[in-house]
Amino acid sequence: MEEPTIQLAYALDTFYFLVSGALVMWMAAGFAMLEAGLVRAKNTAEILTKNVALFAISCIMYMLIGYGIMYPAGGNGVIPSINWSFMFMNATDDNTLKAITEAIAAKAANPEEAPDPSYYSGLSDFFFQVVFVATAMSIVSGAVAERMKLWAFLAFAVIMTGFIYPMQGYWKWGGGWLDGIGFNDFAGSGIVHLCGASAALAGVILLGARKGKYGKDGSINAIPGSNLPLATLGTFILWLGWFGFNGGSELKISDIGEANAVAAVFVNTNMAAAGGLVLALITARIMFGKADLTMALNGALAGLVAITAEPLTPSPIAATLIGGLGGVIVVFAIVTMDKLRIDDPVGAISVHGVVGMWGLIAVPLTNGDASFVAQFIGLFTILAWVFAASLLTWFLIKLAMGLRVSEEEEYEGVDIGECGLEAYPEFVKAG
Amino acid sequence: MEEPTIQLAYALDTFYFLVSGALVMWMAAGFAMLEAGLVRAKNTAEILTKNVALFAISCIMYMLIGYGIMYPAGGNGVIPSINWSFMFMNATDDNTLKAITEAIAAKAANPEEAPDPSYYSGLSDFFFQVVFVATAMSIVSGAVAERMKLWAFLAFAVIMTGFIYPMQGYWKWGGGWLDGIGFNDFAGSGIVHLCGASAALAGVILLGARKGKYGKDGSINAIPGSNLPLATLGTFILWLGWFGFNGGSELKISDIGEANAVAAVFVNTNMAAAGGLVLALITARIMFGKADLTMALNGALAGLVAITAEPLTPSPIAATLIGGLGGVIVVFAIVTMDKLRIDDPVGAISVHGVVGMWGLIAVPLTNGDASFVAQFIGLFTILAWVFAASLLTWFLIKLAMGLRVSEEEEYEGVDIGECGLEAYPEFVKAG
Amino acid sequence: MEEPTIQLAYALDTFYFLVSGALVMWMAAGFAMLEAGLVRAKNTAEILTKNVALFAISCIMYMLIGYGIMYPAGGNGVIPSINWSFMFMNATDDNTLKAITEAIAAKAANPEEAPDPSYYSGLSDFFFQVVFVATAMSIVSGAVAERMKLWAFLAFAVIMTGFIYPMQGYWKWGGGWLDGIGFNDFAGSGIVHLCGASAALAGVILLGARKGKYGKDGSINAIPGSNLPLATLGTFILWLGWFGFNGGSELKISDIGEANAVAAVFVNTNMAAAGGLVLALITARIMFGKADLTMALNGALAGLVAITAEPLTPSPIAATLIGGLGGVIVVFAIVTMDKLRIDDPVGAISVHGVVGMWGLIAVPLTNGDASFVAQFIGLFTILAWVFAASLLTWFLIKLAMGLRVSEEEEYEGVDIGECGLEAYPEFVKAG
Repeated sequence: MEEPTIQLAYALDTFYFLVSGALVMWMAAGFAMLEAGLVRAKNTAEILTKNVALFAISCIMYMLIGYGIMYPAGGNGVIPSINWSFMFMNATDDNTLKAITEAIAAKAANPEEAPDPSYYSGLSDFFFQVVFVATAMSIVSGAVAERMKLWAFLAFAVIMTGFIYPMQGYWKWGGGWLDGIGFNDFAGSGIVHLCGASAALAGVILLGARKGKYGKDGSINAIPGSNLPLATLGTFILWLGWFGFNGGSELKISDIGEANAVAAVFVNTNMAAAGGLVLALITARIMFGKADLTMALNGALAGLVAITAEPLTPSPIAATLIGGLGGVIVVFAIVTMDKLRIDDPVGAISVHGVVGMWGLIAVPLTNGDASFVAQFIGLFTILAWVFAASLLTWFLIKLAMGLRVSEEEEYEGVDIGECGLEAYPEFVKAG
Repeated sequence: MEEPTIQLAYALDTFYFLVSGALVMWMAAGFAMLEAGLVRAKNTAEILTKNVALFAISCIMYMLIGYGIMYPAGGNGVIPSINWSFMFMNATDDNTLKAITEAIAAKAANPEEAPDPSYYSGLSDFFFQVVFVATAMSIVSGAVAERMKLWAFLAFAVIMTGFIYPMQGYWKWGGGWLDGIGFNDFAGSGIVHLCGASAALAGVILLGARKGKYGKDGSINAIPGSNLPLATLGTFILWLGWFGFNGGSELKISDIGEANAVAAVFVNTNMAAAGGLVLALITARIMFGKADLTMALNGALAGLVAITAEPLTPSPIAATLIGGLGGVIVVFAIVTMDKLRIDDPVGAISVHGVVGMWGLIAVPLTNGDASFVAQFIGLFTILAWVFAASLLTWFLIKLAMGLRVSEEEEYEGVDIGECGLEAYPEFVKAG
Repeated sequence: MEEPTIQLAYALDTFYFLVSGALVMWMAAGFAMLEAGLVRAKNTAEILTKNVALFAISCIMYMLIGYGIMYPAGGNGVIPSINWSFMFMNATDDNTLKAITEAIAAKAANPEEAPDPSYYSGLSDFFFQVVFVATAMSIVSGAVAERMKLWAFLAFAVIMTGFIYPMQGYWKWGGGWLDGIGFNDFAGSGIVHLCGASAALAGVILLGARKGKYGKDGSINAIPGSNLPLATLGTFILWLGWFGFNGGSELKISDIGEANAVAAVFVNTNMAAAGGLVLALITARIMFGKADLTMALNGALAGLVAITAEPLTPSPIAATLIGGLGGVIVVFAIVTMDKLRIDDPVGAISVHGVVGMWGLIAVPLTNGDASFVAQFIGLFTILAWVFAASLLTWFLIKLAMGLRVSEEEEYEGVDIGECGLEAYPEFVKAG
């Protein structure tokens, strides 16, 4: 390629990365609205505070250390040697034409050994990656909503985004041992969604259910979300943001083959969400007799999670079915969680954990290069590592400051106790 | 052009198409918020369910059959021969460099007969098109809100998005007879907006008005929307999404002339919305004595609909006036609909139908290649086809399952009856 | 560069500009939601009306005259000679390949004297600029909320967006005298944010505080926002839109150096917001004992305002600190404003004015080409010009039609008086 063409391709790929990253950043708003819509009014300001704060903490911790763990200076595939330099990098330290031209020449001379040349700005790579860790952390906030202390949650966010998430990210996307055994996870059904859900599950187990959710007689009491337009808005935001999440994970768009691949990812991501929504709506209609909006929303999200491990190889009809099965699974998973008395106010463990596993397992169905064995190894590794490391972290936080608000605070609503204000101070609330 | 330049142009055009499509997908959220804000609280969860479900159904039906009707394997200009292959297409079936280079050579050798080479991914084309059919269907849900059965509506969505919309789309954008006679509709004032409004009108006529809307003494009772911040948010979302809707409809951005054209479309789209908003606000102030927010919002949407048939040729000041007149028209149209006892809770028939017609008629004012005769033929064709086909479809659905909820359900709110939940369960409602 | 490469670069830069402009347009929705969430329910529809109307007025006034003042046909650096032609421009009047090739040749022959060639569509430049003036105007609406007459506000918007803003914009971005002395303001901490805040301050001084805000005994009464999910959504929208605001202000992305610069701007913008949020949350926790959500939101916005004057040169850690200090400053500024009895319901003067000044002053800390002297000259010039011109304008409007609604209207809520409708008509309000 001629020099101006190399520069243009680099610029286009960088721009594509930045636009994709901006769409994923927007998913933070989606989680905030979804969770705010699905909790009770008295706990709304607090869940919003957790969501905005976790996003900020994720950015800071990942800049300081997480990115350097996940994409390290070196490492043996299991333990990385941290790269501490990112936080001081600026535009002039980023790739130059000279460096790229040399890297392309080196690769041409020695295709086996030379590292791949950089096709886009290193800073744009950080921007795209940092919003993924925030997504994983957003999954946790929903599951522990309405009873966890705000500052305990934020303390966990520091460890999760600075250490727990980047470690398993390194094993796959940083070129570690999971990548070496052929584990496939295109955009993170496992690395992001199952990871977030595993951390959430550990937290929920230590935290216990909300007061009044499960009766002593074995009854399960529905606690409806207070603002379904917000929950719907959140789902649409997530759906939109997912085009950046999956579409950007192709990492390159600047030639015909890559452009076709990104287009396929967009189409399949959209079809999987559509399939998940319709099948969850129908499943809920059959099981409960009604067109349950919250199940439809969770169905769309389940479809999105399901396709995230492999949005490239399926045809549109296959993507619809993979997402659609995710939509069926999520309805049964939510019902099952309640039977197990795992209290997850927004269904995050079902959507991101159970369906995240389905997404990982589905990869070999359409991708001939993937194997079920590698997928299961990856699945159990992520689940075991994140669950164990999180359980220990939650436990230490519990010792240090406690995880759960007082019974009185829970009854009054955590908004007053934690934030000193109310989300809807003027509207008269029932009960 | 050299090969790397062809590849880069293809990649840029594909990316532009995908970004545009993502913006149009976002319009689904805009319609959902707009409609949720303009109905009563007791019918909010149901309208949200309709909106998310119609989007998913649109995607699935258009993938299965609609896209193959609208962009067929062949046809005589009136009846297409359906292309069934899209649903099985994947990235590797999409255009390759070899195919594009050959097509460019063939076109160069035989400019009259050879088909145009593909300048972007076929999958990206589907992604851009599929969100248009969802837009047309979103128009319908608002007009029939607060009294139509959910499953009857979704049954209509299947026929509308799989057959009625694609047929007239084929006649123009698929290269059929309306295209042949010189009918102009850049981004769909007719094909999308008038189409949606015509289907809605047929539904409203069979369905009747909401209980209490029109008194026996000839009185017209205002039924205010329950959540105007949501309606405002929805309007802003639609305004933003419209940059993709109109901007993407240029179909190509990768040279100076095309880039200038896309920029002109962005500017004119924005100016038309601004003109529509200001003139609707002033018109409402003169007519009603107040700065009516809902009229301002409908004015912005009317400006957008008005410019959609020709956003390229006007100057910014002309676009402002075309949109501005749309804003005046919509205020009178909404008042007139009520006098005709056509009950449209969100004003969709006025915004998309009446102003859609104005958009089509305005094309020859700034585009010298357009004729009023062709515009009127297109207008009446779309109106007649969609209205007639929809009326028949609604009628058959009415026979099969009924269109309207029971009086008791309408009084209680369709949320409880159809969805088994409430949108705002904790907030105390008046009356 | 070869011709196809020039064309592709032009197309990519234009597309980048249009996407950036669309993101900034989206900020209008952010301000609308933020302000609607922070006022009382009875004043919500009116603040929404002001927000949508000010956006439309900004577009129209800037098209008619503002753009021609800010980017004039000529001028002496202080007084521009207005360019009236923009409103009649269309795609075919925009740059052509011939014009660009000639300009590149002229520049090559005479690097000192020849003007820079255009690298992107002139219409895309207008689109990017017009959304900035709307941002400045959006800042004003929040500060004067809950008691200013709607039409008086809109009259001010006409003067502000058609004259006051473009004049000082010309002095810097239009190549006027502030640019000549080396004043640095990358994306508008001064030109946009301090400008908006200065106009707001003048308005608030003439308007006075809301009834009941300050007691005769010196007490300060908190008036909580009515809908914090909306305020949070608005903040997220602004955060997202800011990537276009700052990222687009690099003006070019089509080579490696520019792509790296845009990526650095994205990263730093995000880090500054994160730093501002976390430090505002901690500061508020220390001062008030609670995790105050509204302070966290204002902290994020303060971080964004602080980095806007120079988002390119800092490293990520430096950007975090610049934004973080903005977050600390904003908490103290909000408290101080109340002590000075400057009643600003959303904290706009603190966020955009006080922190805007901090942003301007911080530039020389990381940019070796900037000087504190030039920064202070720019700061005081913007503050003095906008404050004085606004004060005069507000005063004339006060004479002509009055600025403030009647006491009864203020008590009842301006929604009924100004708009003739309510934002939440069905929800029972407390008090």
